[in-house]
Amino acid sequence: MSIRIGIIGYGNLGRGVECAIKQNNDMELVAVFTRRDPSTVKILTDTAKVVNIKDIEDYKDKIDVAIICGGSATDLPNQTPEYSRLFNCIDSFDTHARIPEHFDNVNKVCLENNKVTLISIGWDPGLFSLNRLLGNAVLPDGNDYTFWGKGVSQGHSDAVRRIKGVKNAKQYTIPVESALERVRNGENPTLTTREKHTRECFVVLEEGADAAQVEKEIVTMPNYFADYDTTVHFISEEEFNANHSGIPHGGFVIRSGKTGWEGEKNHTIEFSLKLDSNPEFTASVLVAYARATYRLAEKKDFGCKTIFDIPLALLSPKSGEELRKTLL
Amino acid sequence: MSIRIGIIGYGNLGRGVECAIKQNNDMELVAVFTRRDPSTVKILTDTAKVVNIKDIEDYKDKIDVAIICGGSATDLPNQTPEYSRLFNCIDSFDTHARIPEHFDNVNKVCLENNKVTLISIGWDPGLFSLNRLLGNAVLPDGNDYTFWGKGVSQGHSDAVRRIKGVKNAKQYTIPVESALERVRNGENPTLTTREKHTRECFVVLEEGADAAQVEKEIVTMPNYFADYDTTVHFISEEEFNANHSGIPHGGFVIRSGKTGWEGEKNHTIEFSLKLDSNPEFTASVLVAYARATYRLAEKKDFGCKTIFDIPLALLSPKSGEELRKTLL
Repeated sequence: MSIRIGIIGYGNLGRGVECAIKQNNDMELVAVFTRRDPSTVKILTDTAKVVNIKDIEDYKDKIDVAIICGGSATDLPNQTPEYSRLFNCIDSFDTHARIPEHFDNVNKVCLENNKVTLISIGWDPGLFSLNRLLGNAVLPDGNDYTFWGKGVSQGHSDAVRRIKGVKNAKQYTIPVESALERVRNGENPTLTTREKHTRECFVVLEEGADAAQVEKEIVTMPNYFADYDTTVHFISEEEFNANHSGIPHGGFVIRSGKTGWEGEKNHTIEFSLKLDSNPEFTASVLVAYARATYRLAEKKDFGCKTIFDIPLALLSPKSGEELRKTLL
Repeated sequence: MSIRIGIIGYGNLGRGVECAIKQNNDMELVAVFTRRDPSTVKILTDTAKVVNIKDIEDYKDKIDVAIICGGSATDLPNQTPEYSRLFNCIDSFDTHARIPEHFDNVNKVCLENNKVTLISIGWDPGLFSLNRLLGNAVLPDGNDYTFWGKGVSQGHSDAVRRIKGVKNAKQYTIPVESALERVRNGENPTLTTREKHTRECFVVLEEGADAAQVEKEIVTMPNYFADYDTTVHFISEEEFNANHSGIPHGGFVIRSGKTGWEGEKNHTIEFSLKLDSNPEFTASVLVAYARATYRLAEKKDFGCKTIFDIPLALLSPKSGEELRKTLL
């Protein structure tokens, strides 16, 4: 029997989840829940339904795990506790500072309703967090470094698009190669914001806009660009659509630490991602952890969990015996 | 109260474990057990004892976790089941093909004696296995690549040292950079043995030995060198001692896979290690997982386990709440 999945919210992430389910034979998409008129939402899976979110209670016994694909700012803080009453759930809540509060809210609902919900699953928070924990535990005497990119920052792209005269824009965050090399060489440097990342913007101007003025507004924008070295390229709409329509991302988590009686030996642990599509990869992580959610619920190990609490064996469709034989 | 640790076997790995315990405030070394005359074994920790292995039963209630630092060929297949009668244990058994058999032997003893034993903990098997599992689960439609090095292969160094005329030798395994780049670029290449790694030997000759003959014996040696491009350097004993006395190692585990409805997008997950000392790093991994062993025993979750079965939260001295706040 397949693990029956529901998707709540059908933007880039929800569509990514649908694609990832297709790659996992032990899973089946039952329904996509949407706030829009269901007749206007076209999905790819013939055998699944599109359902108005108002009717979600009807699916209480028809879904094993609900993958919630809303945004962290306003959707997930409400949706994840709400739907954890009905289903085992998983979300990708990524507002790092508010995770403890979100955890407590979700945990309470899960324990009252005998449900398992995993929060903050993805790559950061998510796989990057897992590697930070591993690095700290294995090399207690060391330093952590996280670099992001090369990839698209939606927040920074939006900020540029709000400037008067900008028709469209995309912002790439780029790690500084020389800083990465210093970290990899075990120099344990202290790095400023400017030394770690640069920012590169591709901008399509409105007719008659003042390029020099737009560039100045970008590179001096507080919080977003002022603390970085920023390059601005003005390009045509055709070039923008041809070369900058994707949502690539990635990054590096590095732990550099010392061992030995007097700390004589240096070691570097590095985890990195290079992703053609940020939402499709995040969706693939969510789907693997949906399998773990299902198995924890089968074991009645209820409550809210994070990526730190999940043995990796639970992510794989293979049995423990097969895993030991083929992957250990 | 500290976690009380015993070390069984005091070679490079045992000494590494002793150093790693010093870096973890919640742990305490109680005793080192040795087959040698204890009076001939000097350890670094003032507060710990050196004990003849014959007297190990006296420590049954004085140790929470025994870290077994024997060799995989002949020590661990006997030692780990034997000492799992007395203690929760952890080993770094690394004969991949015999892991299922070792698991079954150890599991039986653990269940009969209410003990937890973790086997095959280190970096390969170990952290590399964890990343292979993660990559397979997140990107089911993809390929696995493992590269080792740059690092010292003890087996290959030993093989060179057995050649007539060789006084001392060290062999480095080196990943081929262009092969690594092809994998990172998502080309999903099929790579031969020769295309993945080269081998480099540093050899000190006995007086009057025939260098050309030694070189020929090395590069044509079946299983060890014949399938590789091998470079041989003859050096003086002084240079050998100055530059080749360490045991560095490392490597790369890469998963390259596709997502999307038609598999349009490519992603690369890479985990890599650069280690000044192979045994000290392996020891650091063992000590972090010894903490998990202790916690599983506290929860009475008895039996043999592998790295796949352990939630990473159990590796850290921090509480779940602290981890969510600081590392997620």
